[in-house]
Amino acid sequence: MNSKLSLVCALACLFSIQLSAQKHSSTPPEVSPMPMKPQMTEIWEPEVPVVTPGEKLGDAPSDAIILFDGSNLDQWVSQKDNTKPAPWKIVDNDHFEVVPGSGGISTKMKFGDCQLHIEFSAPDKVEGESQGRGNSGVFLQNRYELQILDSYNNRTYRNGQAGSIYKDHAPLVNAMRSPLEWNTYDIIYRAPRFKEDGRLDSKATITVLHNGVLVQNHSVINGNTYYIGLHNYPSAHGDDVISLQDHGNKTQFRNIWLRKL
Amino acid sequence: MNSKLSLVCALACLFSIQLSAQKHSSTPPEVSPMPMKPQMTEIWEPEVPVVTPGEKLGDAPSDAIILFDGSNLDQWVSQKDNTKPAPWKIVDNDHFEVVPGSGGISTKMKFGDCQLHIEFSAPDKVEGESQGRGNSGVFLQNRYELQILDSYNNRTYRNGQAGSIYKDHAPLVNAMRSPLEWNTYDIIYRAPRFKEDGRLDSKATITVLHNGVLVQNHSVINGNTYYIGLHNYPSAHGDDVISLQDHGNKTQFRNIWLRKL
Amino acid sequence: MNSKLSLVCALACLFSIQLSAQKHSSTPPEVSPMPMKPQMTEIWEPEVPVVTPGEKLGDAPSDAIILFDGSNLDQWVSQKDNTKPAPWKIVDNDHFEVVPGSGGISTKMKFGDCQLHIEFSAPDKVEGESQGRGNSGVFLQNRYELQILDSYNNRTYRNGQAGSIYKDHAPLVNAMRSPLEWNTYDIIYRAPRFKEDGRLDSKATITVLHNGVLVQNHSVINGNTYYIGLHNYPSAHGDDVISLQDHGNKTQFRNIWLRKL
Amino acid sequence: MNSKLSLVCALACLFSIQLSAQKHSSTPPEVSPMPMKPQMTEIWEPEVPVVTPGEKLGDAPSDAIILFDGSNLDQWVSQKDNTKPAPWKIVDNDHFEVVPGSGGISTKMKFGDCQLHIEFSAPDKVEGESQGRGNSGVFLQNRYELQILDSYNNRTYRNGQAGSIYKDHAPLVNAMRSPLEWNTYDIIYRAPRFKEDGRLDSKATITVLHNGVLVQNHSVINGNTYYIGLHNYPSAHGDDVISLQDHGNKTQFRNIWLRKL
Repeated sequence: MNSKLSLVCALACLFSIQLSAQKHSSTPPEVSPMPMKPQMTEIWEPEVPVVTPGEKLGDAPSDAIILFDGSNLDQWVSQKDNTKPAPWKIVDNDHFEVVPGSGGISTKMKFGDCQLHIEFSAPDKVEGESQGRGNSGVFLQNRYELQILDSYNNRTYRNGQAGSIYKDHAPLVNAMRSPLEWNTYDIIYRAPRFKEDGRLDSKATITVLHNGVLVQNHSVINGNTYYIGLHNYPSAHGDDVISLQDHGNKTQFRNIWLRKL
Repeated sequence: MNSKLSLVCALACLFSIQLSAQKHSSTPPEVSPMPMKPQMTEIWEPEVPVVTPGEKLGDAPSDAIILFDGSNLDQWVSQKDNTKPAPWKIVDNDHFEVVPGSGGISTKMKFGDCQLHIEFSAPDKVEGESQGRGNSGVFLQNRYELQILDSYNNRTYRNGQAGSIYKDHAPLVNAMRSPLEWNTYDIIYRAPRFKEDGRLDSKATITVLHNGVLVQNHSVINGNTYYIGLHNYPSAHGDDVISLQDHGNKTQFRNIWLRKL
Repeated sequence: MNSKLSLVCALACLFSIQLSAQKHSSTPPEVSPMPMKPQMTEIWEPEVPVVTPGEKLGDAPSDAIILFDGSNLDQWVSQKDNTKPAPWKIVDNDHFEVVPGSGGISTKMKFGDCQLHIEFSAPDKVEGESQGRGNSGVFLQNRYELQILDSYNNRTYRNGQAGSIYKDHAPLVNAMRSPLEWNTYDIIYRAPRFKEDGRLDSKATITVLHNGVLVQNHSVINGNTYYIGLHNYPSAHGDDVISLQDHGNKTQFRNIWLRKL
Repeated sequence: MNSKLSLVCALACLFSIQLSAQKHSSTPPEVSPMPMKPQMTEIWEPEVPVVTPGEKLGDAPSDAIILFDGSNLDQWVSQKDNTKPAPWKIVDNDHFEVVPGSGGISTKMKFGDCQLHIEFSAPDKVEGESQGRGNSGVFLQNRYELQILDSYNNRTYRNGQAGSIYKDHAPLVNAMRSPLEWNTYDIIYRAPRFKEDGRLDSKATITVLHNGVLVQNHSVINGNTYYIGLHNYPSAHGDDVISLQDHGNKTQFRNIWLRKL
C-alpha cells in the first residue's frame, strides 16, 4: 500500500471515529477478542468490471444485448415456425405491434438469469374487458409468464392482471398507465435450477418494477404457466428463448434489452 | 360471473388452445387425474390497490413518501443532534450538498422494508483518491451502508466502491457516472427480522439498481456496517431512520422518495 | 487470554500449518492484503447453553417439553371442546390410540418454531386402502399437516402418503415401517411469519426425518392444509396448538416431545 | 378410479367435513370462485421410492452407502497420499481411532448433497483444554468443517466448539456427551452451487442434529473453513471427498453412512 493510500486510510479512520462518536460503534461488541485493522476486511481482487449506464433510466447500458431498438425484428422469430421471421408489424421505426392471429414471437437467442427491460403499451383503442383487453405476456424461458394486460380501469382476477406472474402471483400494486401511454417492465430474473438427474433443485425467482414501482419482490415462481390447473416444473431445461404472446390484441412494444446475469 | 365474463373466459380458452397448439401444453402432464377448469385458479380478492406511477422513470409514484423534492430538508435532522435541523446546504432549489464536518443527516421518520429512490452526484471538483474521493453513504435503518463514492475512474477495494454494501458485498458491476452527472440508486430493501427474545431471525436483503443497472441482486446483508472488524447483528431493532453520511466530501443529493413495502 | 490459552492457540496454529501442508491453505487467497491472526475470528460470547441429550436417539433431551411419556394425556385436550380432556385411550402405560369418532386432540400449550419428536404406529389390523388405511396426521400450529398414514405396501397419491405435507409436498422416499412396528418423525419446523398488518411475510418450512431417513428437506409449506382446493395463508396467526387427527383409524402414538427453537 | 377408491374418497370427504366442523374449514375462503374437487389436488405420479429404514435410529437405511461398519477402512484413504490406505487404527472390530501425526483420512468416493450419519467419541483420557482437547472434524466436500471437539466441560470459542461450523456458526446448544460415551451427528448437507463460469451461485447449507438435538438449523456456510482469516468460496468445485481431521487427538469413530440427496 502506498503512502497516499495510507493517508486515505488514516482519514477514513478519523471519519469512522467521528461517526462512532455520533451513533455507531466502529467495532462490533464482544466479537473479536483481538482487534482487527481496517485493511483486513478490504477485498481488492478481482476488479469490478465497468459498465456504462444508458443516458437516462430505461436506456440500454453498454453491456446489454439489444433485442429491439425500433429498427427491426432481426432478433425475433415466429413462434409457430422459428425458421420464419417474426410476423409482427413495425410502426414508425419506433415500436412494433402484435398482429392478432399471427402467433407469438420468440427471441433467436436463449437466456437464463437476466435483467430484462421491456416497454409496452395497451392497444390505443380500448376494447373488451377483463382478460380480453390488451392481453399479451412476456414468457421468460418460454415458460414463465409475466402478464401483460390493459389493467388500467379494468378489473380482472388479481393473479391475472398486469404485473402478475400469471395465475401464480398477483402484483403488489397496480401501476398500469393508460392505453395512450407507454409502460416499462424492469425485470430481475433468476432461472430455475435442476439437478443433473433432472429433478428440480431450486425454483425461479422474479423481481419486477412496473413503471418504476415494485410489483414483484423476489417472488418464487411455482412452475410453468398454465391457463388450466396447478403450476409445476414438469421437466428440466436450460437456457431458453423469451417469447411474447399473441393473445388477439394489438399490444405494442418498444425498447427491449437484456443483460445476462 | 356474468355472461360477458363467461364470453371472455371462452375466448381466453380459445387462445389458450391456440397457444398450446404452438408450443405450450395448457395443462400439466400427470398432475391432476381429474381435470380442472380455468376459473379454479383465478383469485379475485382482495383487489390490488392502484398506484399512479411517476411521469417518467425515477419520478415518485403516488404512494411515495417524498424525502426531498428540491425545496427543503424538512424531512431530515442533524445526526449529531436530532433536535436540530439538517446542517447541509440546499443549492438552486434543486439539490443539496454535504457540508463537510457538520455530521451526517437522518430522516425524521423511521422505516423498515422499503423501495427507496435516491439520486446523487460526486463533488464536481475531483479531489483525493480511493476512499477519499466523493465518499458518503446511505445507511438503511441507520446501520447498513450502501456505499456512495466517486467510483468513476477511481480504484478502491471492491467491497468499498459505489454500489457496494460496505465491506460486505462488492457491486456486480461499476455503473458509476462521471462527477458532472447525476446517479440514481433504486433500492429494494428488506429489513432484518428478530425473534421476540432478540435473536436474529433472518438477515436483511437488498437489491440495488445503479443508474438502472443491477449491482446488488437480493444480497444478504451480514450485519451492521463496521469500518473495522467482522459484521454482525449485535442487537434487535425495529424500524429506524435512514441516514446519509458526512465523510468529508461535498457529495450532492436530489430527488429522494420511498415506498413502504 | 491466559498463557495456557496462548499455548493452545500456538498448538492449534501448528496443526493448522500441518493441515495446510496436506491439503488446505490456511488463509484465503487474495482476500486480505493485511494478514489476520487466528484469534480475530474467534467468538467467545455468549457461551452456548448446555443441553443433556437423551440416553439414546429418540429420547427426550433435558430442555424438551414432554408431551407424552406413556403415563397420561395431561398435556392434551379434546379438539371438539378444549375444556374437555383428550378422549383417546392410553394402552399399557406405554402408548395411546385414536378413539375413532371422538375427534382430534390438541396440546394445551401453543407453539411456533420447534423441534418435535413423535412416534406412531399404524393400526395393528390392516384394513382399508389408500387414504382409508391408518390415516391420521400431525397438524403443526393446528393448520399445517404432516400426514400420518399406513403407507406400508399401500399406494395412494404421492402428496398424501406418510411423510407428505398433505397435498403440498410428497416425501422424498417412503420409509414407512410395517403396522406392527413403531415409526418416528423427527421434525424441524419453522413457523410462518406475518407482518404487523397481517400480510404473510415468509412461509413456514419443515424438515422431517422418518425413521431417521430424510423425507422433507427444508420444504416450504404453501399454506393451510385443505382437503379441497389450493393451499394458502388466509390470515395471520401466532403460536398455536399441535393437533393430532382422528381420521377414523386406530393409529397409535408414543414418546412425544418438543424443543422450542 | 375404481369404486373402492371412490368409497375411500367419499369417506375421506366425510372426515374432512367432520374436521371442518371442529376447527378448520375444508376449503380456502375467497380463493376459488369455482369450487374444486378433492381429486384435483392429488398427485399420483411418479410413485415415491421405498427405502427400508434401519432397525433403530442411527442404523443405516437400505439406500445408504456404508462408509464404516466396524470391519475395515476400505472406503477411506490417507489424506497425505490418496494412493495409500487410511493410516488410522481399527479397534475391536467396532470403531476406529485417529493415529496422531498420521494425517487425515478421506473417502474414496466423492459426494455432494447428502444425509450423513457419523458417530464419534472424544479420547477416553481427558487431556488438554479448549481447542486442544479431542479435536478433529468432518470436512464436507473436503472444505467445510463441522467441528469435532471434546466440548464436555471444556470451554472454547463458541464458533469452534463441537457442533459448530468452524469459525462460521456456533451450535445452537452444546449437546456433547462425556468422553466415555458415543456421540452422533446426523447431517443434512446441501453443497454450494456454482455457475458455469465458476461464480458462486448459492452457498452451502447444513442442518445438524447432535445426539438428536438440533445444533445447526439450515445454516448457510460462508465458505471454505480457514483457521486464519475470512471464509470465502475461492473457486468452483463439484462433488468431493469427505475427510476426517487428524488434529493430534485420539478421537474415535464408528457407524458412518451416507445417503445421496
